[in-house]
Amino acid sequence: MLVSAFLTSVGINVGLCILLLSLYSILKKQPGNVNVYAPRIAAEERAKERGSLERFVPSAGWILRAWRASEDEFLEVAGFDAYVFLRIYVFSLRIFSFAAAIGVFVLLPINYFGKDFSDIPNQSLDSFTIANVQSGSKRLWVHFCAVYLISGAACCLLYLEYRGIAAKRLAYFYSSPPQPNHFTILVRGIPKFDQYSMSDTVEEFFTQYHPSTYLSHQMVYHTGKVEALMHEAEMLYKKVLQLKEKPRFQRQHQREGFLGLFGSKVDPVDHYTKKLENVEENVRSGQLDFLQKKKEVPAAFVSFKSRYGATVASKIPQSTNPLLWVTKLAPEPQDVYRPFLSAPYLQRWISRFVVMVAVFFLTILFLVPVLFVQGLAQLDQLEKFLPFLKKILTTKVISQVITGYLPSLILLLFMKTVPPIMMLFSAMQGSVSNSGKQKSACIKVLYFTIWNVFFATVLSGSAFSQLDNFISNPKDIPRKLAVVVPGQATFFITYVLTSGWTGLSVEITRLFPLIVDFFRRHFSNSIEDDDCAPTFPYHQDLPKVLLFGLLGFTYSLLAPLILPFLLIYFSVGFIMYRNQMLNIYLPRFETSGQYWPIVHNCTIFSLIFMQIITIGIFGLKKLPLASGLVIPVTIITLLFNNYCGKRFL
Amino acid sequence: MLVSAFLTSVGINVGLCILLLSLYSILKKQPGNVNVYAPRIAAEERAKERGSLERFVPSAGWILRAWRASEDEFLEVAGFDAYVFLRIYVFSLRIFSFAAAIGVFVLLPINYFGKDFSDIPNQSLDSFTIANVQSGSKRLWVHFCAVYLISGAACCLLYLEYRGIAAKRLAYFYSSPPQPNHFTILVRGIPKFDQYSMSDTVEEFFTQYHPSTYLSHQMVYHTGKVEALMHEAEMLYKKVLQLKEKPRFQRQHQREGFLGLFGSKVDPVDHYTKKLENVEENVRSGQLDFLQKKKEVPAAFVSFKSRYGATVASKIPQSTNPLLWVTKLAPEPQDVYRPFLSAPYLQRWISRFVVMVAVFFLTILFLVPVLFVQGLAQLDQLEKFLPFLKKILTTKVISQVITGYLPSLILLLFMKTVPPIMMLFSAMQGSVSNSGKQKSACIKVLYFTIWNVFFATVLSGSAFSQLDNFISNPKDIPRKLAVVVPGQATFFITYVLTSGWTGLSVEITRLFPLIVDFFRRHFSNSIEDDDCAPTFPYHQDLPKVLLFGLLGFTYSLLAPLILPFLLIYFSVGFIMYRNQMLNIYLPRFETSGQYWPIVHNCTIFSLIFMQIITIGIFGLKKLPLASGLVIPVTIITLLFNNYCGKRFL
Repeated sequence: MLVSAFLTSVGINVGLCILLLSLYSILKKQPGNVNVYAPRIAAEERAKERGSLERFVPSAGWILRAWRASEDEFLEVAGFDAYVFLRIYVFSLRIFSFAAAIGVFVLLPINYFGKDFSDIPNQSLDSFTIANVQSGSKRLWVHFCAVYLISGAACCLLYLEYRGIAAKRLAYFYSSPPQPNHFTILVRGIPKFDQYSMSDTVEEFFTQYHPSTYLSHQMVYHTGKVEALMHEAEMLYKKVLQLKEKPRFQRQHQREGFLGLFGSKVDPVDHYTKKLENVEENVRSGQLDFLQKKKEVPAAFVSFKSRYGATVASKIPQSTNPLLWVTKLAPEPQDVYRPFLSAPYLQRWISRFVVMVAVFFLTILFLVPVLFVQGLAQLDQLEKFLPFLKKILTTKVISQVITGYLPSLILLLFMKTVPPIMMLFSAMQGSVSNSGKQKSACIKVLYFTIWNVFFATVLSGSAFSQLDNFISNPKDIPRKLAVVVPGQATFFITYVLTSGWTGLSVEITRLFPLIVDFFRRHFSNSIEDDDCAPTFPYHQDLPKVLLFGLLGFTYSLLAPLILPFLLIYFSVGFIMYRNQMLNIYLPRFETSGQYWPIVHNCTIFSLIFMQIITIGIFGLKKLPLASGLVIPVTIITLLFNNYCGKRFL
Repeated sequence: MLVSAFLTSVGINVGLCILLLSLYSILKKQPGNVNVYAPRIAAEERAKERGSLERFVPSAGWILRAWRASEDEFLEVAGFDAYVFLRIYVFSLRIFSFAAAIGVFVLLPINYFGKDFSDIPNQSLDSFTIANVQSGSKRLWVHFCAVYLISGAACCLLYLEYRGIAAKRLAYFYSSPPQPNHFTILVRGIPKFDQYSMSDTVEEFFTQYHPSTYLSHQMVYHTGKVEALMHEAEMLYKKVLQLKEKPRFQRQHQREGFLGLFGSKVDPVDHYTKKLENVEENVRSGQLDFLQKKKEVPAAFVSFKSRYGATVASKIPQSTNPLLWVTKLAPEPQDVYRPFLSAPYLQRWISRFVVMVAVFFLTILFLVPVLFVQGLAQLDQLEKFLPFLKKILTTKVISQVITGYLPSLILLLFMKTVPPIMMLFSAMQGSVSNSGKQKSACIKVLYFTIWNVFFATVLSGSAFSQLDNFISNPKDIPRKLAVVVPGQATFFITYVLTSGWTGLSVEITRLFPLIVDFFRRHFSNSIEDDDCAPTFPYHQDLPKVLLFGLLGFTYSLLAPLILPFLLIYFSVGFIMYRNQMLNIYLPRFETSGQYWPIVHNCTIFSLIFMQIITIGIFGLKKLPLASGLVIPVTIITLLFNNYCGKRFL
């Protein structure tokens, strides 16, 4: 990529960011937008107090407010998972500041003066990468030292971070008041005996084997449709209440018939009241039906007199058949995910297998749109396939937009659909808690992102046919990666700009919820949900941050130019997500820090990947000694990971 | 290999077997050999009663006696590990009878009439293998059905076997009386506080956290040399006692000086009595020293009032730092392996890593002697390298001995050195029990055997240079295996003859212990050890049996001729090991059935390996549809393994 095209991309993204951030600081002050920007805070009075002129002046006060909250306040308001999420930014800032110092002040000059002196604008950005250094040059030993320094620093920081989080997590547990779920375990796989009800079986089992600690139990029942009907009735009730508060002329009249499009116009209050009565009737008959039948499900929540008792019962195998009397600590009440509470082991096992296969194929087949995007990214290929567009494509502005901006934008839009799909898959996998579901989806999206964004881009951008070669020649992987990875440096810098910078501004401006909220308030009768504060989509944002980490490590040696852009991303992201966590997202359920092992493993993977590429690079650059001397640091990194696994598990 | 050379090998081995077995049935009846053949039974009187002529007639009574023992008797006498070991023979007999029925009556005729009709003796044994079937032949679908049938039968039998062993294991646990180790846990990583002794720390910790179940504890101390001295004193004491019982003229007089070769002759009783007094003096001073210092080690055995309490304490993490207060159920008193009781976590971790590296290199470098053996196996190569031996080598008898017998014999001798080496490695790995040490050595020897006997033979016999190709082209593995594996069928049949048949006869005749015992009794003063019954070397024999299983599965389709030989091995082996377990080996420590998961996993590996080779074979024989249709059965086998892992863990 030429420097000029690159600068265009930087310009567009910086412009977009500034625009969106200004918009945010203005929109945030509008009293009507409280539901969008501060749904957690009953901030209406404060918003009203402000002068009308001040409301339209961009300001940076929110940054200060986000910064000012102390750690304990933050933990209390945002929960432990949010704390862990922000620690990724802190860790990334630390390690990439260090890497950037080495990269920009030491490696970049070496790369740039590797071959010749020429003026910048007409030159390709590749002259800043390691590809510009001559083969066999003694200067490459500087890169070699950098591998050791960065790996060592990363391991130290990872250790400190893990230790800090483990200590914080303990403190958080100790300080939190006892909750019902601490005393309760979830028992599944309760055997069915003909003459007894399952409830009796559970009672007998636990009074026999845990006589001193067993307190009581609650069976899980098949509720059938009653639960859904109850929810519907609740929503209708709220709607009717809100409509009644409005003056009659403000109510939008509605047609009775199909989809509200046909039939005679009626007052919405009457319409919904009638509907509510119908639903209530159904609920009553459903409840009666339920009480008569009481369909038991082989699952129960068993409560103990002490936390110790519950822990013991959850840790110790209860039966000689490990598929019966399966115990685990119960999730928090609001975290329970019901659909799979009753599923027998075999069903969960099969559905897990089916989901794994589905995820695998989704991950592999997703390459098709990525390939299409890569086709767009390369201007000459576009011209070849669409010759009639040649005139437009050769226009300077358009060609620069296409090469610099479009590919990553299209990729971004495609990627948006993946987290919900993976969440659906995880839901089918038989998790019993929402947090477990989200964590599992997070891992799936992470694999997906690393494969489809990073590897597919690297392979297809340079030569997609190499994928097959890759699988059939594992020994040559380092060498081949060393050929193809540096070539995609500029693409990933623009990716940081689009997906990172602009993505952050879009996130903070919340454009989509803003539009939805606008329409809801002005054009529909839908009610204002009391708890409209959303939960934070970890499964969507965490893999993205980790991908930037992977990019940072991979390119810190090859093309250190990416590091300053990443540093800006991480520092802005830290403040922004702090703001979002404090004002917008409500932690409804918690994994209490279980995301950190994912982060840790992914960072170790990134480090190892960086080292493998370095082995290949030194091989290509005819420095076999350096190539061989990188292997010890790889082994040490793996040992370090093993140690951390034992130490902090 | 020609049929005639093969028949020579069969002849030699059958002859050896008959000779050794006759020898066994005679030697067994000699009263002097009780220590070798029935060290567990005080059978002297019975032996003396027999007439002197009968003593020298070969008989098969021992087979009946081995067969007659009931399962419960066997369990009581031989222990649960021996039971599990014999179940491998039962399982192998069942599955390979089934496979042999298919192989010999269906596949063998198809293979043999695959191309042409010619007389047997001048033909190569390869005409009995699948290589003889023409490409694209419809007859290969019979082989395809056989894959499904054998895989299905193997999975069913594996499941039944696993279920049976799990049930038996439970029954064995329930029936055994409570032992001290059931109430005791081993605690390691006890933290050291300056003002307290570790013993106080342990007492305080367990009275605080397990007040209702904690009973007492026993610290582990650094005994220094006292323990070794005590052992030496005991041995000397026994020796003196035995010598005093002998009449004076039978005692072999001994010289006082270096190695008993120089100095004046003395009566051995005086000599050893003096020595014993010296040692006793040392022991007393050592004990005094020990009592004064009491060097505590951060490990302790903690006893509880109930088995439940001990189990709870061993299963629940005791500290927020998983490297402190590490608990596990204590091994049986006679099973404790002391050297690593006190090792801190980091030391164990490092030594485990070092051992892993050492085992890896031993496994890889062992290829060198195997290569040499393979060179011997191929007559034409020998002639090329040693032209002066040409005359001898072309002699019919010698050439047949060399091709049919020598290679596997040399391999066998080399292999004999491996189990002790692996045992040494496992000892350095930080195990706290002898049984754990042996189990870990067993896994190491298994990997070693499969790699060095099976893969190295397969690869180097046909084309050793393919190994490199193999690593760099994983996609072509099935196809390449399909080329090289069938070529080694005859080698492995002779391996079954040498290592299997003759190995069994050598094992039952106990030639080496017989010779040692003979020399000990006639030429030395060494004492008769009371407990000279050896423990069964599972780490040496189990991998061998599993290798035969692998051979059976791999060649059941390719060269079914191996199956009858295997069946004979398994049936003779079953009876022989039953005899050995009942009469010779004493179960000093037990893993109580932990060998079965190893057997299970290895069998699954063999199945998958067979299926992969079949995929390659069908690819080579131009039946891509059949090749593809084998993949489902591979997936089902893997799922089955996963299910068993969950169900029986």
